[in-house]
Amino acid sequence: MDTLLLNKDHIATIVQQVGLNQIMDDITRELCHAFAAYDEAVVDIQTRDGFIYTDPAPSLLEWMPAAIKGETAVVKMVGYNPANPLRKELPTIVSTLHMYDLNTGHLAALCDGTLLTAIRTGAASALASRFLAQPDSHVVGLIGCGAQSVTQLHALSRHFEIERVLAYDVEPAASSSFAHRVAFLGLDVSVVDRATLEADAHIICTATSVAPGEGPVLNHERLHPAVHINAVGADMPGKTEMPLALLKSAHVCPDYLPQAVLEGECQRLAAEQIGPSLIDLAKTPNAYASLRNEQTVFDSTGFALEDMVAMRQMLDYAKELGLGQSVAVESMAYDALNPYSFVQDAVSSKQSAVKS
Amino acid sequence: MDTLLLNKDHIATIVQQVGLNQIMDDITRELCHAFAAYDEAVVDIQTRDGFIYTDPAPSLLEWMPAAIKGETAVVKMVGYNPANPLRKELPTIVSTLHMYDLNTGHLAALCDGTLLTAIRTGAASALASRFLAQPDSHVVGLIGCGAQSVTQLHALSRHFEIERVLAYDVEPAASSSFAHRVAFLGLDVSVVDRATLEADAHIICTATSVAPGEGPVLNHERLHPAVHINAVGADMPGKTEMPLALLKSAHVCPDYLPQAVLEGECQRLAAEQIGPSLIDLAKTPNAYASLRNEQTVFDSTGFALEDMVAMRQMLDYAKELGLGQSVAVESMAYDALNPYSFVQDAVSSKQSAVKS
Repeated sequence: MDTLLLNKDHIATIVQQVGLNQIMDDITRELCHAFAAYDEAVVDIQTRDGFIYTDPAPSLLEWMPAAIKGETAVVKMVGYNPANPLRKELPTIVSTLHMYDLNTGHLAALCDGTLLTAIRTGAASALASRFLAQPDSHVVGLIGCGAQSVTQLHALSRHFEIERVLAYDVEPAASSSFAHRVAFLGLDVSVVDRATLEADAHIICTATSVAPGEGPVLNHERLHPAVHINAVGADMPGKTEMPLALLKSAHVCPDYLPQAVLEGECQRLAAEQIGPSLIDLAKTPNAYASLRNEQTVFDSTGFALEDMVAMRQMLDYAKELGLGQSVAVESMAYDALNPYSFVQDAVSSKQSAVKS
Repeated sequence: MDTLLLNKDHIATIVQQVGLNQIMDDITRELCHAFAAYDEAVVDIQTRDGFIYTDPAPSLLEWMPAAIKGETAVVKMVGYNPANPLRKELPTIVSTLHMYDLNTGHLAALCDGTLLTAIRTGAASALASRFLAQPDSHVVGLIGCGAQSVTQLHALSRHFEIERVLAYDVEPAASSSFAHRVAFLGLDVSVVDRATLEADAHIICTATSVAPGEGPVLNHERLHPAVHINAVGADMPGKTEMPLALLKSAHVCPDYLPQAVLEGECQRLAAEQIGPSLIDLAKTPNAYASLRNEQTVFDSTGFALEDMVAMRQMLDYAKELGLGQSVAVESMAYDALNPYSFVQDAVSSKQSAVKS
């Protein structure tokens, strides 16, 4: 039984052959399908768990498991280390995606999750924005201009006629380099102060590494009356980005409620203060169309079903393009009752030498 | 950043070069060191979690995470599918081991966990038997003659002068093929009825796939007065192999208490009915030497620290022998703030074609 490995070069080839726009569009569409079709009888999602450390630097390694019952599981392993970019020139988020056959435990496929986390997080925000933002929104504000903001803007650009992009980051180096990083989108990007961004943007994405308890990352007093906010950064207990007053006055829509109440903006809300989830929105978008005229917050914690969708899409591309490397990882015995049988020759030949 | 992949052939080469006896001895010794040195301030173990299904067949996919705080995590993924050997000619337990750098989230290494689960489970029983069985024990009984029983016997053979091996399985095919599978040990193996095994054995290993609620798998009434039992099969809520009366009268020693009370024989015991753990035994073996003269049960649920030890040992061999394959899995960007930068050329070249 082989494991299909998509290495870094395979992913780069897929991006070259398919194009980033097509990949973003496909994953956004597949996310929408997966949410609209979501059925607890078929899909199993476990809220993520992990190792959290604060010493020597804040760090987090999490596992995010999703399964199609009786068939396939995808487990995303993801490290979150905000000190990485400055200390090690590594991304804050580093990740791998693992697919297992539930009927055997076999590792069926393995690929990068770093690029895919950024893409699927952007895609989820684009989807939420389609459901919750005014369709003619044309000013997008980005609070936090790190890696995730690139795919937030890319994903939004596929659905909105963006005229102006307003960028703000507490690190001047991050905001000043942002225009260069998103140059491929051909948009008008300005670095602005936060007050200008808050006042002018129709859609805001917050994707910050604010520490737990150190939010909020924006002030709600001057926001557009129908602003839609994609709050992307809250992803661990205690970490939130929104002012509590805004969470209480706006419609807050989580991606996946059981996880959002543990680590998203919804941590700070009672059940009756939480609006429809992205799954609800995808199932009956028309039922919630009036929300586009009010202030809305998409509480994006990022959940395992999104990673399963993204991985499946990459495997589909790989199959189409004939990419990937087959590796035999498990030492599967030819005799199921004898773990040593795969090395029987080895056992026999060494026996006289090692038997003491 | 590369991932070190030890594939099936690398593992086979290690077995050929090092020999199964040496591997078993090394892992048993390293387990003993790890337990003796166990310190909650340094090591983090999470009780396993997973997807459990009963339809179409009973199946379980679990993750078992252990970490050296601030350094390294090992996550074992393991499938438990008792229907595999008969339905698919695959082992009941199929597994992979994944090592992550906690400071980045990077997948540092990947290798088989199928052989290693069998070996480390045998090694843990050998260690427990050294602490809890009479040193001159020379009759070993195996209840359940599947894959795990091979390594149970192998591990015990490294520490006891075994004169007779008594094999029993509810599946006659499993007991009758057992002698052939352990022929490399050169021991005197007989298939016996369970009553004979219970009466004659000094050390018993139970490694069965008994379904939850369908135990016990042995009768305690005629056991040797100082018998030591390695109860290996209990590994999920509800699944136990021992008669309750024996658990109450014998000294029950779990491998890792927090997990054993959830899924081991200890599920059925109150805190005060549970004896020293394997960690306690390894730290102060002399304090418990008198237990060798009484009936003892090692409640082996199999825990993540054992897998970390086994994986590290294999990586040590691989380094020594210059084995392994470097693969670049994560699509790490050269600009930490730009997830697309690793494919920047791809982006530029496709831009005109895909920008709509």
